[in-house]
Formats: sequence, structure tokens, C-alpha cells
Amino acid sequence: MLDSLFSPKSIAIIGASRSPSKLGYSILYNLIESKYGGAIYPINPGADEILGYKAYPSLGDVPERVDLAVIVVPAKRVMEALNDCANNGVGAVIIISAGFRETGGEGLRLERQMAEIAEKHNMPIVGPNCVGVLDTIVPYNCTFATETMPKRGKMAFMSQSGALCVGILDVCIAQNIGFSRFVSLGNKAHLNELDFLQAWSNDDDSNVILAYLEGIVDGGRFISEARQITKKKPVIAIKSGTTSGGSRAVSSHTGTLAGSERAYEAAFKQAGIIRATSISELLDIGLGFARQPLPRGDRIAIITNAGGLGIMATDALEHKGLKLAALSPDTQERLRAALPEAASVLNPIDVLGDARSDRYKLALEAALADENVDLVLVILTPQVMTDVDNIANFMADAAESQPADSRKPVVACFVGEASLKEAYRIFSERSIPGYPTPERAAVVIKSMVQQAQWAKEPLPQFERFDVDRDKVARIFEKVRAEGRVQIGDAESRDILTAYGIRIPKSKLCTTADEAVAYADEIGYPVVMKIASPDILHKTDVGGVRVGLDSPSEVRDAFDLMVYRAQKYQPNAQIWGCLVQEMMRGGKEVITGMNRDPQFGPLVMFGLGGIYVEVLKDVSFRVAPFDRKEAMAMIQEIRSYGLLRGVRGEPPADLDAVADVLLRLSQLVTDFPEIVEMDINPLMVFEKGRGAVGVDMRLILQS
Amino acid sequence: MLDSLFSPKSIAIIGASRSPSKLGYSILYNLIESKYGGAIYPINPGADEILGYKAYPSLGDVPERVDLAVIVVPAKRVMEALNDCANNGVGAVIIISAGFRETGGEGLRLERQMAEIAEKHNMPIVGPNCVGVLDTIVPYNCTFATETMPKRGKMAFMSQSGALCVGILDVCIAQNIGFSRFVSLGNKAHLNELDFLQAWSNDDDSNVILAYLEGIVDGGRFISEARQITKKKPVIAIKSGTTSGGSRAVSSHTGTLAGSERAYEAAFKQAGIIRATSISELLDIGLGFARQPLPRGDRIAIITNAGGLGIMATDALEHKGLKLAALSPDTQERLRAALPEAASVLNPIDVLGDARSDRYKLALEAALADENVDLVLVILTPQVMTDVDNIANFMADAAESQPADSRKPVVACFVGEASLKEAYRIFSERSIPGYPTPERAAVVIKSMVQQAQWAKEPLPQFERFDVDRDKVARIFEKVRAEGRVQIGDAESRDILTAYGIRIPKSKLCTTADEAVAYADEIGYPVVMKIASPDILHKTDVGGVRVGLDSPSEVRDAFDLMVYRAQKYQPNAQIWGCLVQEMMRGGKEVITGMNRDPQFGPLVMFGLGGIYVEVLKDVSFRVAPFDRKEAMAMIQEIRSYGLLRGVRGEPPADLDAVADVLLRLSQLVTDFPEIVEMDINPLMVFEKGRGAVGVDMRLILQS
Repeated sequence: MLDSLFSPKSIAIIGASRSPSKLGYSILYNLIESKYGGAIYPINPGADEILGYKAYPSLGDVPERVDLAVIVVPAKRVMEALNDCANNGVGAVIIISAGFRETGGEGLRLERQMAEIAEKHNMPIVGPNCVGVLDTIVPYNCTFATETMPKRGKMAFMSQSGALCVGILDVCIAQNIGFSRFVSLGNKAHLNELDFLQAWSNDDDSNVILAYLEGIVDGGRFISEARQITKKKPVIAIKSGTTSGGSRAVSSHTGTLAGSERAYEAAFKQAGIIRATSISELLDIGLGFARQPLPRGDRIAIITNAGGLGIMATDALEHKGLKLAALSPDTQERLRAALPEAASVLNPIDVLGDARSDRYKLALEAALADENVDLVLVILTPQVMTDVDNIANFMADAAESQPADSRKPVVACFVGEASLKEAYRIFSERSIPGYPTPERAAVVIKSMVQQAQWAKEPLPQFERFDVDRDKVARIFEKVRAEGRVQIGDAESRDILTAYGIRIPKSKLCTTADEAVAYADEIGYPVVMKIASPDILHKTDVGGVRVGLDSPSEVRDAFDLMVYRAQKYQPNAQIWGCLVQEMMRGGKEVITGMNRDPQFGPLVMFGLGGIYVEVLKDVSFRVAPFDRKEAMAMIQEIRSYGLLRGVRGEPPADLDAVADVLLRLSQLVTDFPEIVEMDINPLMVFEKGRGAVGVDMRLILQS
Repeated sequence: MLDSLFSPKSIAIIGASRSPSKLGYSILYNLIESKYGGAIYPINPGADEILGYKAYPSLGDVPERVDLAVIVVPAKRVMEALNDCANNGVGAVIIISAGFRETGGEGLRLERQMAEIAEKHNMPIVGPNCVGVLDTIVPYNCTFATETMPKRGKMAFMSQSGALCVGILDVCIAQNIGFSRFVSLGNKAHLNELDFLQAWSNDDDSNVILAYLEGIVDGGRFISEARQITKKKPVIAIKSGTTSGGSRAVSSHTGTLAGSERAYEAAFKQAGIIRATSISELLDIGLGFARQPLPRGDRIAIITNAGGLGIMATDALEHKGLKLAALSPDTQERLRAALPEAASVLNPIDVLGDARSDRYKLALEAALADENVDLVLVILTPQVMTDVDNIANFMADAAESQPADSRKPVVACFVGEASLKEAYRIFSERSIPGYPTPERAAVVIKSMVQQAQWAKEPLPQFERFDVDRDKVARIFEKVRAEGRVQIGDAESRDILTAYGIRIPKSKLCTTADEAVAYADEIGYPVVMKIASPDILHKTDVGGVRVGLDSPSEVRDAFDLMVYRAQKYQPNAQIWGCLVQEMMRGGKEVITGMNRDPQFGPLVMFGLGGIYVEVLKDVSFRVAPFDRKEAMAMIQEIRSYGLLRGVRGEPPADLDAVADVLLRLSQLVTDFPEIVEMDINPLMVFEKGRGAVGVDMRLILQS
């Protein structure tokens, strides 16, 4: 679909200008400078020739069909130019011009028109309000971001901020960091992040995809598509604007704890997208993937000529949850035989401050040959004797000369700058990722290990339970018919039951005798609650009693609750009392859902009570998710140890909890009208004994 | 004391060499290149002249007294050279030569001799095993780390890793980052980190002190001295080797949770040392302090020409717990009048992508003039219209032209590299700290705000309680006389009481009648425990009963416990039963102490039970500490909310907890023989009702 964008045979610049202060000049100039090999057509009704190229009054005057058109005219003339493109069979369009969505509703309306034109004419549009697109493979530079083309490389990049494109290109040109494709997304009137993810997932010229995003157009679809793409190709993204809260008022625990940042965190995790926290981290991680293969495990060997840096690297790797390889006895022997006595042949391998390239070469070859090693980090400071450039070249030789089917990644951390310019140039030419501090290298290594793990894991296997969906639909219809959005107690129990979630045994009893009889049947103690559609806050009218231990207590409670309810709320319709099995001996957990504006149903899990309220110790996933993800949700809370069993307690029934999470996932996916819900508490019993949803609140879309 | 080191009038190089491959050549060469203004004396018995300087056979042949001698001879000749220095009245010595402590016990012995010589002759020694010392103020370069002198600047630096010195100098020379003094500490045979902290605390040429440390020589003294120094001058340090655990087996909760990393974290906090996590963070933060004044508060204004970067900066600042300033209406008005309509006059101030220096100047002046602003962060990407260098210069003008007594710091974040080289050069010349990403700038700003806050706070005010120290001393004597290291139940209670920590009312009763009488006196329910010096695990023999509610239960319990104890352990001496007030309605917290090899008594605080065991939610301080620090300890645990009161519960008596922590601090400071202890649980009641130490275990040095 994006062929015209990424392999155009001809490019027209609509709004090309002879005035060097105009963007229409910059873009034409940059395109020419980029050594684009196809035809270039400046479009300008007032010029015959610009920068040595024949100019045309309009697209219709160009002698051939144009593959790619760049629109850089004032906002009010953009739609006309776009229609011209459509009518002249242009393949794809980049709209540089600003003045649309960002200026208000009329701009948004025009963007919708752009999308319609794009779809109707099968003519994809980048922008508007962007700095353009640059491609080192074609090559072409249709941006006003840089006059200098960056180096060709294996990273594809997209950004929702044009200014950031400028900054990043400026960094990468200085540091000799290469790109394959470079897209400024602008307002995303038509093409958005997902389109480029899809296009680049099959692009042999790009090993890794980088993105700077401020929002995502279609969250649900994004997750399901992205998670397939990331299995094949790493995707690293910055999501900014993480600290701004949502705007809708919320009333559930889940709603209070959810929020845009939690949703993105969950969504990126589920989509297999690696999250970068800064521009430099984005580029660092990108370089690792662009330049080296994935490791097969997480066992890392370090080679260093500086003990202190070896320690710092070990700290940094361990902080990331990575571990140092235990070198094989053979490797240790080989190193001991060849290195000076004071050297360390354990990991980190310390080749000492006076090491020259021979020692580095030997140590690197030994580490790469060791079957206990999955990745090698080579650390260096430029000391008096250090022949830095040779070492850089030897590293590349060793990395390249590995058997193609079992290459282990090699990462460099050369600390310094003035003496290392040539080494870093060698790294960039010879495809070694190099970082100025151990901490930055550790972040990259962590991402490489994580991606390798992710790529091996199968896609989620969604289960569908056999549930009574119609029953829930009928309940919702009834609730809406009554003009309500809150779901009451009795209705909640029916919903949970319909979706196969166990609830306490209970019965609505209309007389004290009936209550006693039912309590006798299910066994003491019991819980009793006043049953009335009109009383929302039962405890306020003394309408909840727990731990009732005998027939007489049940009888007293019945009469007292009915009496008080009538007294406090004389007009309330009183159905009787709900008599309920009292759940004991379980652990209270909480689960719930809040509908995120970007990603939809965001399901929460946590331990009940103070763990949620004070410690905010909860985890999130976007529904639907599979059993493995449900289990991961349970295990990633900090207080997970309490469920696994401490102090000789038996472990809780985690399978049952996962089951509830999955059924909940199905419920909120089946019914988009559920905007918020909590099951609180969900009582979990010991392994094999299940979990019971004791109380639920649910709010429908108003 | 370090005058000879930091203002030497003459320098001798003992072991100066004519061979360019020798360190004795490099150091002399570098010294000459550094344009040192004093006399230079190469010492070499086999040369008349080296590098154009007259060489002397020995120190005794030099015509004047030498201020500073650099020893760079093989290890086995170092002591002789050092004695020569001492005998010739040398002022200070740098020992470059390696081959001491790092090679084993004999080397350590020689280092001890060095220290003795240094003390006896009042001749401070740097090293051995170091890359030397460099000083841009004098100036001189007695290192083999660099031939090029770094720029003169306001940062003083010390490092325990020589290789790191090399790497850092190489970075700083490339980035035009200046130093005042630069010391490679080496093995710290004599001078250590504290000596340099003290020397530089009064050094007008150094605004900030940076350190890379792998260990600290005298932890207790370090904290008490450093906390005074950091009030006057910021100290930033990397402590590496943080993931290695201690070696002594531990048996208390506190011991299990403590460890080297926790001790350093607490010690640095108490000493006011800002901890950097990487070399680049160390330099970043150092630059901030070196180049700008401290802010007076934490209200930050952002100016940007890139919306996306403004968002990222806001995220980064908020993640660090900082807040954006609310610009005054006047400032907003002033900006609105002058900036284009599309600009944002709220914070971040967005001057738009086409902003030139006039807009930046205006915005910066307005922000600096706003009384709601304490610090301004100026962000830029080099876009088509951006006159970067003018903006850099205007920034410096605006920063400098503030009234001297109320200067606000200005920090730059210019994102890019190829187009920004001149701007960063301007920053370095004109004393503006500049960073390539918002995240790095945010770390620096956080440190500046934190240091300003720290500088304002008074030094700790240590309280001493009136305690019965002699009684505890007698108990410890008795325990040791009996060959024990564990402190028993009755003894524990006496210790807590002697230090004014409340314990439950209790009495050792020898008959059932006496037990009933005492229970009647203190009120039911009570706890009873078998009292025997021979029974360590009371619960194993049914020797602990709680919740005894009536005289008959107490009588039964007495007889049963005595009977069973005799049955299970027939040889045990049975004193009777301890009858104890049962503590109810409080919250269980835990406190304890573990003696850290580096810093001494490390006191822990946390919530009891699973909070400690599963969540490891605890805080640490090195004793002694004051009430403010004790309160901070309580407040920094994640579950602090539970003590403050949730769900309508009354707040716990935090003053009483702080009191216990302080009394404990005094106890473990008074008695260095205590190696480990727990008070678990310490029951805390609601505000005003105090705290009671229910159980304690204590282990003495064996």
C-alpha cells in the first residue's frame, strides 16, 4: 500500500518556491541534495524553473503520472491541491502544511475529508502538519528537517513531533547513526503509527522500528496488530505525556487507579513494544537491534581494562535483572594461560589497564566461543598503552567471523570521548553498537534479552468460556429501560453467575421464617443484607449484618433490618432480606475494569483492602488477554508473595483467580457498554478450592 | 594540611625517565605540558637531563626543599624513595607505583608503614596505585591520564578508580567541561575521601565536589563530617559495587534486610551526599552546581520551541517529584502581548518552531522576572529558522544580568548535535549547564532543588535520654560471663526498660495462685509464657498461651505449661510462668539494628509481619540520628499510609515510635558489642497512647 511512498519513481513538490526563506524551497533543495534518482517536478504557477528543474503550473501539466506529491502550500489551498493529486492519479501524498486539527474543529473536519479522499482514491496521505519523509534506501529527502542526509542504516523511525525529528536527525548526523526510513507523522489525518508498523514489518531494509508517540489512533487494533509485528521485528517507542490524568470522573477503585499511563504501560507490554524513557535511550536500543543479532539467552560476559567499570557494569546489569555468565573451566584455563597473572579470568574478565588489542582479541574470542555465554560486553577506557582503534576493529572482526547461524551479539562500552572518535566511527561502519557508559549499555542488553524472549513466546491463545451472554444482555436492557446506569446487588450476582464466576450461596427471603430455614440449609454463620431497589447505601440504614451465628440471630436481624429500613426510608420498596453464605478463610483480592479512552477495557488485579487503597499495588492488562497474561498479572504485584503462601500458609488458588480474570475479560469485551466495574472482594481460597466473587459494582455507559 | 599538594612551589618526579614508553616519562612530559609555573626536578640517578630539565641523582641533591614529590619507581623501591622524601622535608607525596594492597598482605603492611611515615613527618600521601593528581588552578598535571589539560572549572573530582579518571578526563576534554582539582585516590594508604572533602570544603576554586568511590575508610566519621561539608558545598558521588552482599551470616529480620547497599543509601542520605547512578549523571549534576546558583524553591518554568519536548520535560520533572511553576497573570499577559497567537503562554511556554532569539529572549526575561518561578529550563531543537547561537548567548546574558543577590538558575536542554556544537561551546564558556535530553536536565534540576533544601535544614540535633546504661552493661557482662551471645526474654525486658522503652506489664509467677493474683491485678486477657533459662523454643513445648480470659484459664494454663515443660524437657530448670499484659488494638511495627562493617549501627524500621517479610518495605538510618531523621524513616516506607490512619482509623502514635527509634539509636551507639537486634513486634497505639516493645532479640559480638 505504501509503495508510492517508499519507492517513488517521481516526486512533485506542490508549492515549490524560488525564495530560500520558504519551506517550498527548502524541501526541493533537500530533495535535490539527497541524490534522488527519479524525476523531480516542482509545481508553481508563477515559475518556469526552480533550482535548475523545470517547474509546472499544475500537476495536470506534468508529462507523466506522479508517484509521490509533497504539498507545501498555505492551509487554505491544501484541499484544492489534494484534490488535484487525486484527480491526477498520484500514488501518495505528504502534506507539510499546518493549520488543521491543531487550530480547531474546522481543521479537524478538513482532515476527515483528507482521509476520505485518501481512501476513495487509494492515495495514502502523510500529515498534515509534519516535517516530511526521508528515505535513505530510495534515497530521497522530502523534509525541511535537514539538508544533510543521515547515513543509511537499519532503523526505521516515525515521530508524532516534527521538532523531535529535527533534533534526532541532528544527533544522528553528528554521531554517524543510520536510518532506513524516517517519517514525521504530523496530525495523522490518514496514515498513522499502525500503518507504518505494518509497512515496515516486512521491510528488509529495516531491522528495528523506532517511534515517538503522543497518542494512538485505534488502541484495541493497535495492540492486536502490533503484537504480531513485534514477534518478527523489535519496536521501541517513547510515549510522552504520561503524567496527564484522564478527565472522566470515576467512582470505582479500578477507575481511580487506572489512567492513561497505566493503560499505555499495559498495552505496550501486551503488544511487545519496548518502551524507551528518553530520546537517547530510544536511539541506544535501536542501535543494538540495528547492528547485532538477538542473544539466545541472558548470560553476559564482560571484558574490561578498568576494574571500576567492570563493577559498574555488573551493578547495572544486575539492577536490570540480568546475570553474568559463569565462564566454563576451559575458557578460564585458556584465559589464565594467556593473560598476565594479575588479570581476572572470572567474569568480568579484567585484561588490566595496560592491555593492548592482543589481550582484548584473545579474551573476546574465548568469551564468544564459550557455550555458557550469550552476549559479550566489551568495556574500555583509553589508557596510555591502549591501542583503541585496533581493539574496535578486532571486535568487529570477531563479531563478524562467527558462524552465521549462531552469531552472538557483541556490544561495546568505550568510556571517553576525545580519544575515541575514530573507534566510534569504526563501530558505526562495522555495525557494532557502542555506548559511553555501562548503564546505557545495560539498558540495551536488557532490551535485547527481553526481545529474544518475546520473539520465542507464542501469540496469546484466547479462550472463550461457555457463558450466558443473553442473560446479561437482558439485565442491561432492563437496567437501561429503568433509566439506571448502576447495577444492583441481585443483578450483579446474576451477571457473575452468567459468566461462570462463583458467588456465595444466597437467597432473597421475604420472611424471617424463610431466612432461618435458608440459613439452616447453607450453614452458619451467614451474612444478611436488606433487599430493596431503593436503598443504595445499605450500611447507612443498618442494612448489613455479618457473622450471624444462630437461628435466633437471623430472626432478630431480619425483623430489625426491615423495621429500620422502613423507618429511615418510609417510601422504599422492601423486598425482604438477602441471606448469604459467609465466606471465611480466604484471602481478599480485588479485580475490576475501567474503560480507557485509548485502549478500551483495562482490567485491574490487586490484593484487597489496604494493598489497593494505600499501597496501590495493582497490575493492569487490556482485555482480551490470555491465561498466560492473566497469570503474569497476578504475579507482577509486589505482594504476590502473600498469595503464593508465606509463614507456612498454603498457596492461594491462583488458577481460579486467573479464571475469574479471563471470564471478566470476556464479559467486558462482550459488553462495551460496561464502563467501570469492581469485584471487591474476590475471596480466594487455598489451591484447589477456588475463588468467589463476594461483591460487585458495575456502571453502564450513560 | 594539603597546601603542598594544591599549591606546590616545586615538584620532583622520582623515577623520571628518558624512555617515552615509561610512566616516569609521561608524567614529566605531562607536567611540563601543563605549564606548571614552579620548579621541576626530575630525579634519576642515571640521567643528567630529561626533556630539557636538569635531572638529579637523588632528592638530597636538589638545591631547595621540594613541596611535592611524585614517586613512580618500581614497587620494591617505593619505601626507600618515600623515606628519602621524609628525610628531605618534602611537603606531600603522590605514589603512582602499584604493587601493594592489591597484591596481598605484604602490600597492605607496607601501606600501613606509608601512613605512619606520613603522619610522623606531616607529609600527606596520595596513592599508591593511582594515576596521579591534576590541578587547573596551580596549574599542574602530575598524572599519566592525559597529555591535554582539561579546561579550568569549578568542579573538584576524586576517584578510587584510576581507569575511570582516564575515561572521565577524555570525556571532559572533548566536551569542554572544566575541573579545579582532579585526584586519583588509588589505594588510600594515607589520604582518603574524607581528607579531600575537608580540604575542598573551603576551596574557593571549587563549587562542587564529585567522587567515584568503591568503599569508605571510616564510615561513622565520614557521615558526621560530610554532613557538615554538604551544607556548604554540594557533594555528588557514585558508589559502585552496590549489588554485592555482606558475608557474615545473619539471624535477625534486620540483618536479613540490611546489607551494604542499604547502608550506603542511608549513610549518603544522612550525609547529604547526592548519589549519581552513572558517570554521565555525575558530570551532569556536577555541571549544574558548577555553573549556576542554587534555586530558592522548586517551581520550574519551561521555555521550548518544540511541543513534544515540552511534554517530555514535564513528564521527566513530574517523575522526579518536581512541579511546574504557575506563571503569574502579569507574565502571561506580557507573553501573550508579544508572542504569536498560536504560542502557549502557560507553562511550558511554547515559543513555536519558527521562534528566533527575540522570542526566546523575551520569554526567558519574563520567566526570570516572575516571582512564581525559581528556575528556568530552556529547551530547543535546531529548526530551519532557529538562530541557535544567538539564543545561547542571550540565555547567558539573561542569566548573568540578574541581580547578584537573587540569581535564579538557568538550565539548557538543546536537543541535537551537529548544529549545536557552537551553542554548547558558548554554554561552557559562559557557564550555562546544557543537556542533550529533558530527562538528563530533570535529574540535574532535581539535585539542585534537593541541595537547596538540604542547605537550609539545620544539622541534626542529637538527643540523649536519661537511661540506665550501667544496668545494661551489667546484663551484657553477665551474658558474656556465661559464654552466651544471645539475650533471653527476661534480660531483654530489662534492657528495654533501662532505655526507657515501654514493655508490657509482666511478672514472673512461681505458683498458679500468684499467677491468678497478678492477672487479677493487671486485668484480663493476659499472655502466659513458661519461664525457664533452658527452654529456647517455648512454642515447641506448648509454653506460650495468649488471650487467657479468666482466673480459671490462667490457673489451668499455669499447671499445664509447667507439666508439659517438665515432661518434654525433664532436665530443664523451671522458674514458673511469666504473666504478661496482652497488648491489643495496636499496630505491629518492627525495628531493629544490624552492625554494618562500613558504617556501624544500621537501624531499621518497618511494618510488622508480611510487610517486612514479603514486601521488604523498610527504611534504614545509621545511628546516631535525630528526631527529624527518625520521623523521616517512619514516613518513607511505602505502607506509611497505614500508620497515618486509613478508612477512618485514628493515626498511630508516630511520636512514640520516633522515640523508640531514638532510644534504640542511643542503645546501639552506647554498646558497640550489640551486633544485631530486633524489637518485633513493637505495638503502636493510637496517637497519644504510646508504643510498647513486646518482644526483642539481641545478639552480642561473639
